[in-house]
Order: sequence, then C-alpha cells, then structure tokens
Amino acid sequence: MTINTTPPELPKVTTDPLPASTKIHVPGRLFAQIRVPMREIALHPSAGEPDVRVYDSSGPYTDPETAIDTSAGLARHRESWIDARGDTERYEGRATRPEDNGRAAASDRLRPFPTRHLPRRATGDRAVTQLAYARAGIVTAEMEYAAIRENMGRDAALARARDGESFGAAIPDHVTPEFVRDEIARGRAIIPSNINHPELEPMVIGRNFLVKINANIGNSAVTSSMEEEVEKMVWAIRWGADTVMDLSTGRDIHDIRDWIIRNSPVPIGTVPLYQALEKVGGIAEDLTWEVFRDTLIEQAEQGVDYFTIHAGLRLHHVPLTVGRTTGIVSRGGSIMAKWCLHHHKESFLYEHFEEICEICRRYDVSFSLGDGLRPGSIADANDAAQFAELETLGELTQIAWKHDCQVMIEGPGHVAMHKIKENMDKQLACCDEAPFYTLGPLTTDIAPGYDHITSGIGAAMIGWFGCAMLCYVTPKEHLGLPDRDDVKTGVITYKIAAHAADLAKGHPGAQIRDDALSRARFEFRWEDQFNLALDPDTARSMHDETLPAAAHKTAHFCSMCGPKFCSMRISHDIRAEAQKEGMEKMAAKFREGGQLYLPEAES
Amino acid sequence: MTINTTPPELPKVTTDPLPASTKIHVPGRLFAQIRVPMREIALHPSAGEPDVRVYDSSGPYTDPETAIDTSAGLARHRESWIDARGDTERYEGRATRPEDNGRAAASDRLRPFPTRHLPRRATGDRAVTQLAYARAGIVTAEMEYAAIRENMGRDAALARARDGESFGAAIPDHVTPEFVRDEIARGRAIIPSNINHPELEPMVIGRNFLVKINANIGNSAVTSSMEEEVEKMVWAIRWGADTVMDLSTGRDIHDIRDWIIRNSPVPIGTVPLYQALEKVGGIAEDLTWEVFRDTLIEQAEQGVDYFTIHAGLRLHHVPLTVGRTTGIVSRGGSIMAKWCLHHHKESFLYEHFEEICEICRRYDVSFSLGDGLRPGSIADANDAAQFAELETLGELTQIAWKHDCQVMIEGPGHVAMHKIKENMDKQLACCDEAPFYTLGPLTTDIAPGYDHITSGIGAAMIGWFGCAMLCYVTPKEHLGLPDRDDVKTGVITYKIAAHAADLAKGHPGAQIRDDALSRARFEFRWEDQFNLALDPDTARSMHDETLPAAAHKTAHFCSMCGPKFCSMRISHDIRAEAQKEGMEKMAAKFREGGQLYLPEAES
Repeated sequence: MTINTTPPELPKVTTDPLPASTKIHVPGRLFAQIRVPMREIALHPSAGEPDVRVYDSSGPYTDPETAIDTSAGLARHRESWIDARGDTERYEGRATRPEDNGRAAASDRLRPFPTRHLPRRATGDRAVTQLAYARAGIVTAEMEYAAIRENMGRDAALARARDGESFGAAIPDHVTPEFVRDEIARGRAIIPSNINHPELEPMVIGRNFLVKINANIGNSAVTSSMEEEVEKMVWAIRWGADTVMDLSTGRDIHDIRDWIIRNSPVPIGTVPLYQALEKVGGIAEDLTWEVFRDTLIEQAEQGVDYFTIHAGLRLHHVPLTVGRTTGIVSRGGSIMAKWCLHHHKESFLYEHFEEICEICRRYDVSFSLGDGLRPGSIADANDAAQFAELETLGELTQIAWKHDCQVMIEGPGHVAMHKIKENMDKQLACCDEAPFYTLGPLTTDIAPGYDHITSGIGAAMIGWFGCAMLCYVTPKEHLGLPDRDDVKTGVITYKIAAHAADLAKGHPGAQIRDDALSRARFEFRWEDQFNLALDPDTARSMHDETLPAAAHKTAHFCSMCGPKFCSMRISHDIRAEAQKEGMEKMAAKFREGGQLYLPEAES
Repeated sequence: MTINTTPPELPKVTTDPLPASTKIHVPGRLFAQIRVPMREIALHPSAGEPDVRVYDSSGPYTDPETAIDTSAGLARHRESWIDARGDTERYEGRATRPEDNGRAAASDRLRPFPTRHLPRRATGDRAVTQLAYARAGIVTAEMEYAAIRENMGRDAALARARDGESFGAAIPDHVTPEFVRDEIARGRAIIPSNINHPELEPMVIGRNFLVKINANIGNSAVTSSMEEEVEKMVWAIRWGADTVMDLSTGRDIHDIRDWIIRNSPVPIGTVPLYQALEKVGGIAEDLTWEVFRDTLIEQAEQGVDYFTIHAGLRLHHVPLTVGRTTGIVSRGGSIMAKWCLHHHKESFLYEHFEEICEICRRYDVSFSLGDGLRPGSIADANDAAQFAELETLGELTQIAWKHDCQVMIEGPGHVAMHKIKENMDKQLACCDEAPFYTLGPLTTDIAPGYDHITSGIGAAMIGWFGCAMLCYVTPKEHLGLPDRDDVKTGVITYKIAAHAADLAKGHPGAQIRDDALSRARFEFRWEDQFNLALDPDTARSMHDETLPAAAHKTAHFCSMCGPKFCSMRISHDIRAEAQKEGMEKMAAKFREGGQLYLPEAES
C-alpha cells in the first residue's frame, strides 16, 4: 500500500489494490458503456477452486490502471448517461459566497477546488429522480449498474439453498435491473445519485439487497483539514464504506465538500442545517427558511447525493424530551428544538417540506429523514418522543414520494437488545418499508472508547431484522473526532455487522466468502486466509507477531496450539483417511500412525 | 497504575485501584468472617447522587491495603470455612513427577512454587461439593459470598421496575443465600470452588445471575512463560474476567499452574487432556485412562476449580464430521477422535465417566463438559455431529448430578445469528438447564484479526437468550496466542457482551451503571464519565487526544461537535429552562437568548 504523490500541497490519498486482489469490470447488457467494478481475490493454485469476487466500494483508487489526481477529480463517467436522458440543462448556478466557507471575504478562501463544473438541473418542472424513472417503467443505467454490483459476479444459474431468517425481506437469487427498478418504484430501495455527481459509482440501498454501511467524516470547529478529510473518505471506502457523510461544521466547508465530492465514487450525504447554522453565526434562533433553502441549492449544485433533513421534529414533540435522561442528542434535532421554542413556532423544515421536495426532485437528491429525537441513552430508548417523531417521518415519506423523491429514514441511537426489533418493525409499518438507516444502535452506555463494539452488536441485529444501511460508530464516539485509524476500525466493525446480517437473512451470496476462508483455514492456506479477510494487513501482521518465518505461512499449525495440538491438522488427517478408505480401514490405518502432527517444515 | 515490585525473578503483576475506585468489603450475615469485595466508583460532588458500586473480580491486587507477594500467594481465607465443615482431611498427596512438567528429571524443574501446601480431600466417600450441601439444605459460606456479590450493594428494599425479555430466566430483585442454594440444588447454577483453592473469592454461574465471562490464558510449545501467564491472569481479572482457564500446553505446565492458582482469586479451569497428552509425548493414541486419571488427581490436588472433559464425543460421532468444511476444531475433541479411531474403541472418557465423577466429588471440581464437536465455521453450525454430542452431554449431566458433581456445558463456536437461539434452546432442553458456557459464537468467518467483534455479537445474543458464561475470544483468535493487550481487548469486549445481555434480560441492577454514566455525559461530568467506563484509561486518553487541557474536562462540549453544535448542551438548557418555568414561559425566555453555546472557559 503506497501513498499516491500528487503535488505536495494537494491531498495525498491511499492507492494500490488490496493484497492478491485485481479490479475487474463487468459490462452492462442494457447499457454497454457501464463497467461495474468488483474485486477478485486470487487463491493459491492448490485451492483448486475459483477466485473469489467481492463487492468493491473502493473506486479507482485501488485500480493500478487509473492515474489519480485529486486536483482534477475522478472521471465523470455518468455525464453521458445523464445527457442521454435529455431531461436536464446546464446553467450558471449559484455563485459561491464568502459565508459559504464561514469567511468575511472571498479573498480569504483557502483552496477552492481548481475546476468549477457548471451545475445541471431538470428542465422545466421535470422530476429527474430514479424514483420517477422507476415509476415510469424506465430501467436506468444506474439501476443496471447497481443490479450487477449486488450479484458480486455470481452465476445467475447457480441458486444456493437458502439458509436464513429474513423477517419478510425477499432477496432474489439473482438481482436483475428490473428487480432494482421494481424496488425503487415501490419506495423500498433508493439509489442516491445526484445528477451533479457524475463521478459516482451507483449503488442501491434497501432491505432486499446487501446491507450497506456509511462512514461519517468531516472537520469541526476544533480540528482537522481538507487534506485529512479527503484521505479519510478514500480510506473509508478502501475498507468498505458504501456511502460517506461529510459532517463538517468548521470553516471552509463549502470548499472541503467540493474536494470530497469531486473525488468520491460513493454517494455523499450531508446535514445542510450545519452549514446553514454557520451562515447565521451559530445562533439557532437566527435560522430562516431562506438561508436554509439557499444552502440546499448550494449543496445540490455541488452534487450532494442525500440530505439529512430533520423535518420530523415538531414543536409539540419537544416537551416530550424534558423528562429524558439525555435530552436531545441529535445535533440537528437540538438546533431545531431550540428554534421552535425560541419562536414558539412550528419547524420551518416541516412547514416548507414540499418546497424542499421540489428542490430535491430537480437534482435527484435523496432524503435521509433525520431522527432528531433519537435516544441518547439506554434509559431513553423507544420513548414517546422517539416514536412520535417516527410517525411524523412516515407522513413526510408519503409527501416526498408524491413528489417522486427518494427517501430513507434515520434511526437510533442507544437501544438495549430487547428493544431493537420494535424499532425495525415500527419503522417498516410507519414508513411503508422505506429503507431504514440507523446509527448503531449502541446496546449499552458503559463502554466509551469501545462504542464501535457496543453499537456493532446492535447494528448486526437491526441489519438482520431489515435495516438497509448501518451508520458506523468509531471508538472515539462520545470522546472526540475519529482519526484515520478510528475510521478504519469503525468501517471494518460495520462490515462485520453488515455481513453477519446478510448471512442471518440468508442472502444467497453472503456465505461464499465465509466458506472460502474457512476452507483456506482448514487447509492451512494462510496466505489465502489473510487475503480473504476483511482486513488482510492486520490478519497477516498478527500472525507474523508470533510466527514471522515464511515457512510458517505453509505450516500445518499456528502458535495458538502449536504443532502437537492442532485440531485442524488432526481432523484433516481423519477426513482424508476416511474419504480414501472408509472408517473401518481407517482405524487400522491409524494404528501405523506416525507423526501426523509435525509442521511441513519438519516433514 | 504501577507495577508491583517483588524480587526481580518473580512475576511482576499490575496492582493499584482503578481510577476513583475504592475497594469495599461487605460482611456476611450468616457467616460473619466473610468479606465480599465490591468496587465503589466515586462521583463528583456536583452529581448529587450516590457513588456507584460495581461487581469486582480483580481480587486483592486492586486493594492498597493488601501487600502483594506472588511468591507467597494470596491469603488462604477459605481454609477456615472448609475446616469448619469438618468433612475433609489433609494427606500427603501425589508427588510431582518430572513428566508433569514435560521434563526428563526433577532437577530440570525451572521454578516450582516456593510453598507446597498439603492437599485436602473428602473424608471417606463423602461428597464435599456445593451441590451436595445445597441438596442437603445447607447454605455454605461460598453461597452467601456469591449471593452478596450478585447484589452489587443494592438495597434489598429497592426493587426496580423490570424492563427486559428474559426468555424464561427468573432473576430475583435481590439474591439471597437461600436462592443461590436453591439454584445450585436444582443444577441450574454452580460455584466452582475446589477445596484445594482456598485463595478463591467464590462466584456463581447460572442463567438467573449476572452473565459471567471467562478469559483463556496459557503458554504453548511455541511461546510464553510463567511470569507472563501469572500477569495475564492478574491483568484479565483487573478488567473483569470472572474465571480464567489455563490452557498451557508446553513445558513446566504443572509449575505454571501452581503459580497461577496460588495467586488467583477467581476460579481456574483447565483441560486435563492437554497435560495427559504431554505425558505421552504428544501421541494421542498412546493416551490411557491411567495417565488421564493420574492427571485429574494431580490437578485436583493443586486446586483446579473446573475441568473441561470431552466425554461427550463418542466413536460413532466421528464419521458425522467427515463431510464438514472445517472438521473438528476442538483440540480435545480432535485428540479424542484420533484415539477412538486408532483403537476403534469407545472414548475412555465416556467409559470411565463415573470414576471421573468420583474424583471430582472428592475435591469439588466442577465439570465443564466439553464440546469436542463444536462447529469451526459458519458452514458447520448446528449440524448432526454438534447436536449428537450435545445430547450425550445431557446424559452425562444426569450421571454427574447423580454423583453430586456440579456441571456446566460448553457450547460453540461459529454460528450465524439466526442459528444462535436454537443452540440455547436445545442446550436447556438436553441438559435440563445446567449452565451453558459458550465460546463466542462467532457470527461470521471473514474477519480474522477482529474475532473479538465477530464473536462479541454472538456472545451478547446468546447471553441474552440464557447463556450463563461467555468464553472470550481475542483479536488474535485463529492467528496466534494473545498477548497482554489482546487479553484486555478480549475481556472488555466480553464485559460489553455480558452487560448488554444483562440489560436485555432485565437484570434489576444492570442499568444503574448505564444511567449513572449517561447522566454524567449529559451533565458534562467528563471525569465521572471516564471513571464509570469499563476502561477508564482508554476513555480518558481518547478524549485527551483532541482536548488535553484540564479545562476541557469541565467544558460543556467535546471535539466531536465543538461548542456551537453540542446537542447535549442545547437540550440541557432546554430542560433546565423547562423545569424552571414550563414550556410557555420558556419560549419567551429563549427569545432573550444569549450565547448558550460557549464553553465554560469562554463564559
């Protein structure tokens, strides 16, 4: 793994493929021009089984064929798909203002992204959302792209025997573009794909697809820089983040967002309220619909793929939080609660929701309806405030759908295990199966410093129950902003949770990787075991700590048990013998015995 | 945290209390001489709430009042309890032999524990097990000790409203010695407490008590030493391990075990088969009942509290494993399978099980009936081999109970989430509610290097469903032997899993710590938040990474959101105002507004 060296003052990002991995591209059938990326993990020839194809969210950064220049941004391959639809126009767009970056004068701007692309919008009052196309019976390039991705190169003919409990999810043996269209038309899935984010590699979010994960990045008033944030995005997708939210709240957030989007192959989400608040000097009560609306357009023109909108928190909900142990822990929620109380008026997000829909449909920005009243502690889980807001999110879902807007719903938070399923079931009922997108949930409050784990438990469970995307939590949650290492730990933990959920749901492709790795383990193909792991680097380095010698990478034991006690070695012998000669002869054979335990090196 | 300095060549162990913690001792009512340890975490006076008492497994090492000398071992406070029962006798015991340490001559012995205590055994054919006493209606000091511990200093009068799903577990509001006796008599709980381990601080394992965790330590032929293993034990209990298994398989294991037991306040478990195999040069087929029996007596005299015995794996089960993806992954299981096949005879552990019971009842060594056929991969979970053995373990449970022996049952392994509950339900049914003790289970195979997390998910779930003790898995699982840091990570992860399970089961005392920490979080009592955490050191250091200044330990924000965006700060203001004046006046009040967001430092 090397560090790509663009000119010194530009963001340095991590490139190169993962170990033993090759990026392959699968062409479309309906859309010849699409090239869907997958990662193929090569196994040792002795394995006598095909290489393993896995889902690849890492973008061109892991493709040696692609030259990376963060100052130019990624190739804008979606331009032609969008042009072909002939329903959008380019226009001058909104001029960047000093306050967009929290500065007094334009001259203070630190480092704008070098190229400005003219934004695109729907012509007339057209809806250019994937939902509008799906409802019109149109299969888009984005839909075929996402469909091919979901199959991870599996042969359409090979249906695996199902083993799982899906709780009503209906994952097909093979995902077709038509199935993706169906799910989107039904509102059960979304493809976040702003027409101003042509660098995007489209992906689908819904309970009848692979469970996805999101990584949050972004600076705050206290820490971090553009360079760090761009590398955090690249680093997060390298390890498997399917989408990235830029939650920056400090200065220069307009420019940081530009740099991130122009270099991101995954959907980028934001909370526009954060920037709006910066524009009014951080005084919640000074927020206005006009400032907020202007911020939505600013970000839609940049190419943000989904907006977190806290329109479900209403004035009359706020008193429900007064008795809570931890009050309101959503930033957006607390800001809106303060605004509502100060003016003693209904939330402007709620009152102007239809106008927000009109903006989103023009650029295809998906909604991520925010849970401003999510519980911030085990004590507050599943309370009246939380569920009252969820019901409002259900109403808003219907309104957004009426405007052809794509919608997902945000969920908690902090929830003990026995209360998790109620969250999922209530969300499916209130929001008519719109995709659920939860933070964790954390299953206990007593382990700050380990909240990737307290929440990974809850995330795996709610993913199994039907949650479509899991927002990661890093070890720094409640303590500070995650650094690069925290981002990796959070992403790997959530890939584990999402995959454990896919297995439990009975996803037809999920167990292929587990089985390949288990066979490698049983056959002492250490290199294959490392290469098939979610984090090959860590697996290898942990093994090296006790057995660094190259010979040990083929040894028929490891340092856990040592040669004499390797159960796999023994049972491997048992199996081999049994298969050769049957159990009876086997007993005799075993009497001749001999040292079955010695490592390769010694035998 | 300092390192205790006994003479240089002796094990150095970690001592000193955890931050803001005091060890208190609660006296018995029935047994005045017992002093039950608890950890009291002091809160900042501004909290206006009582200090928090938590379960304390760390022993005298965290008690500044106690001088630690590992060469002398811990105080033998149980001697008097055992003497008082008048049903045991001291005797010369078995002489240590060179082969006990895997050596040619006694003179090769590296470092025997300095003091040899004469072993103790039941007089005549008496049963001196806690089960025998419980059945006779006798409440022992061990039972009262364990009962007091379970209540964590809660006021017997204060019953909390229940919130949980217990799946049939019946945890009382307050645990009485009589309740412990009942549960043990019923076979639903055990107190592992060899009469030759008088240094023990007794604890109870059962589904109607707090979920417990075990940490495995032990050297292998490839790595580690006595000094490291003793410190690993002390380190593991510091962070919360309730029992420790010594799985040493290299040389000097008799002496290493002496050092560990003489210095351990928690029950020590072993797999006697490992030492027996060493005695026959590592050749499974050379194992004999005589060698094994001799090893049981050797270890019973040393004070081992529970034995893993793989008597459930029978000759006719072995063919059931031939089609598996990962065969037999239990070391003991594979050794016994090889023995059975070689001789084409029934397992000597199965055939001599009643004699094993006779030994265990004489010293009160509890059984941990081993799952030699546990699945080693998602592919092999819940298969015929695994469940056939579980049914045999059910038979053996009845036999052990007939001999007044205490029993728990070992469980898997690798199991996808949707198959976990079946494991718990089947174990309860087959083994008549004898405590279940599982390794993980791991919910996916694809994350070597992170198997504390893949298994922590399964452990939390099976603990919720009724598993009594969770055997930890460290990040090194499948890759190497855990070092000190891995042990800590494994223990903290499993404390999280066990506590999440207690919460979900509705344990009446579990949420007290979550609530105290959440209030500290909401009130910006950072120090209290760190001190109430499972790992105060890590929580504090992560906070220091971004906000090291002392002033920040009282700041009303953290670096995650910065001052302007601190939702807790805002909602705290909302709540305070609301409580003072009610929502109506509140809105007016808010209009006067002012900078609610500034950190203490600035205001």
